[in-house]
Amino acid sequence: MINTNTTYASFTDFIKGKDNFLIVSHFNPDGDTLGSALAIANILDGFSKQYTLVNRDVVQEKYLFLPKATEVLLPESLVDQTFQYVITVDCADYQRIGDEVTKLLTPDVEILNIDHHPTNTNFGSSNIVEADAASTTFIIYNLCKKLEIPLNLDIALCLYTGLMTDTGSFQYSNTNSEVHSVAAELISYGINVYEVVENIFETSSVERMVVLKKSLNTLEIDSSGKIAWLEIIQELSTKSEDIDGLVNYPRSIKGVEVAISFKQVHDGKVRVGLRSKKYVDVSLIAMKFQGGGHKRAAGCTIDGTVGEVKEVIVQEIKKYII
Amino acid sequence: MINTNTTYASFTDFIKGKDNFLIVSHFNPDGDTLGSALAIANILDGFSKQYTLVNRDVVQEKYLFLPKATEVLLPESLVDQTFQYVITVDCADYQRIGDEVTKLLTPDVEILNIDHHPTNTNFGSSNIVEADAASTTFIIYNLCKKLEIPLNLDIALCLYTGLMTDTGSFQYSNTNSEVHSVAAELISYGINVYEVVENIFETSSVERMVVLKKSLNTLEIDSSGKIAWLEIIQELSTKSEDIDGLVNYPRSIKGVEVAISFKQVHDGKVRVGLRSKKYVDVSLIAMKFQGGGHKRAAGCTIDGTVGEVKEVIVQEIKKYII
Repeated sequence: MINTNTTYASFTDFIKGKDNFLIVSHFNPDGDTLGSALAIANILDGFSKQYTLVNRDVVQEKYLFLPKATEVLLPESLVDQTFQYVITVDCADYQRIGDEVTKLLTPDVEILNIDHHPTNTNFGSSNIVEADAASTTFIIYNLCKKLEIPLNLDIALCLYTGLMTDTGSFQYSNTNSEVHSVAAELISYGINVYEVVENIFETSSVERMVVLKKSLNTLEIDSSGKIAWLEIIQELSTKSEDIDGLVNYPRSIKGVEVAISFKQVHDGKVRVGLRSKKYVDVSLIAMKFQGGGHKRAAGCTIDGTVGEVKEVIVQEIKKYII
Repeated sequence: MINTNTTYASFTDFIKGKDNFLIVSHFNPDGDTLGSALAIANILDGFSKQYTLVNRDVVQEKYLFLPKATEVLLPESLVDQTFQYVITVDCADYQRIGDEVTKLLTPDVEILNIDHHPTNTNFGSSNIVEADAASTTFIIYNLCKKLEIPLNLDIALCLYTGLMTDTGSFQYSNTNSEVHSVAAELISYGINVYEVVENIFETSSVERMVVLKKSLNTLEIDSSGKIAWLEIIQELSTKSEDIDGLVNYPRSIKGVEVAISFKQVHDGKVRVGLRSKKYVDVSLIAMKFQGGGHKRAAGCTIDGTVGEVKEVIVQEIKKYII
């Protein structure tokens, strides 16, 4: 799991003699990027360093239980400030920071890029990138161990949250023995597991239930039983958390290899979510339509109606089904 | 977590000098009772003991990947046989074995009762009961360690499956540091985590999606926002796996403390499923109606229509809501 024993030292090298860091998580922030950013903030406290936390988007309410989560600022509240020292977490490329945030950086900016995406472009002046780490917080955990940075409950809670969410609660194929060992140690700092779960997973809105019900009405499976899809019907709600993960419903059906969600968005475009189980590399399909992602989870946006886009995408996927 | 250091020895005492064991898991078997039964079977192989695996009900297809799962017999295929030595796993009381199975036992039967339910009645001639263990497989893991019974991939897979399913994939409040440490060790025997997940969680039927959609149509929340319920509408399918866990949908709504599912069953009766999040002891409510269960998950069956039963149950629950 650990690629090198030396890259962790770039953390100390990067913060040494510097101050006033900007800690940047990726836009539409999830549990791993926020857990990572907030863990770094708590770690910098230990070094008595100043920092500012920023994200292009508002932090979803379900993550506000994380220590310092309410300190994450929007770029518009920092318009008169610029930052020379930046730590990005869980950002595969420079674009994932968000345009609004990049405007805050000085021309001579120095970036420490900490990430676990295989597609990371090493855009930092320093890069701690481990493609096989289950989460970015897993890298930060190893970094703390290697650099003998003491953990505490706040740091552990941030690291655990990233590990738990990015492994789908210890269910995805990135879950291994080491992931559980790290979870065991982090929890021993006093984490109340159910409190984390309740905050993150048990905060459905009634609107989400309505979206789910209406979307399930559109569920279809192709004649082979290997491709299933639904349209996300979101009339009452505009919150992203009300539609997150709906593609998992067609995905959960036995025998389905590729699951698709379609959502009509602005300008006559359709947002397409793609998931696969075993052998179809959906990132290849997404890339054909100027999208991107991972082998098992990818997405793209295509001009047209849902009916038209569905036709095109399902035909394309059929080429990959065996 | 470990209550005593000596009870594990009753396993060795029980099997010493005996043979031809009947291994009994509870009816409507779940991942923990099956994982436990099959782990015991694999362990008895190591002692070169003969055994028969039995369950009142057919093992759901999703559990058939477990080593020896296809060897679990129905009681009707054993009608001419009786057993003097019985090991029950995850059965809180003698009734959980099922009447059809109890008919297979001799009058001088000796039972080793291995279980983790706080309500266990210690009905065995020997009892290894630990109320604070996260799963019955967790007890069997400790038993193996204490008695120096070597683990292998088959045993580890059975134990992991019980641990994973009974902790709701490491999300329930019974998940602690020790649970993760045990998972870490078990996985190190070569378990493919995603294979387990795929078998157990990604085998929804299209019928389940239809039941879910129709049931969500009946979702209601009381004016306080703390009690939510739905009726399980199961027209096309009679499989229990198509309705398992539907009570989690009202439960997942933010602010809800008690979730209820109602299902019209035979003889003008309604099956009531109860779940709570933090403070309502739903086992007390279930017991008022001759049902039972745990603090956070219980159930009962009441005469009447869904409308009538709903009225009664919601009124009763309101007494407990603060």
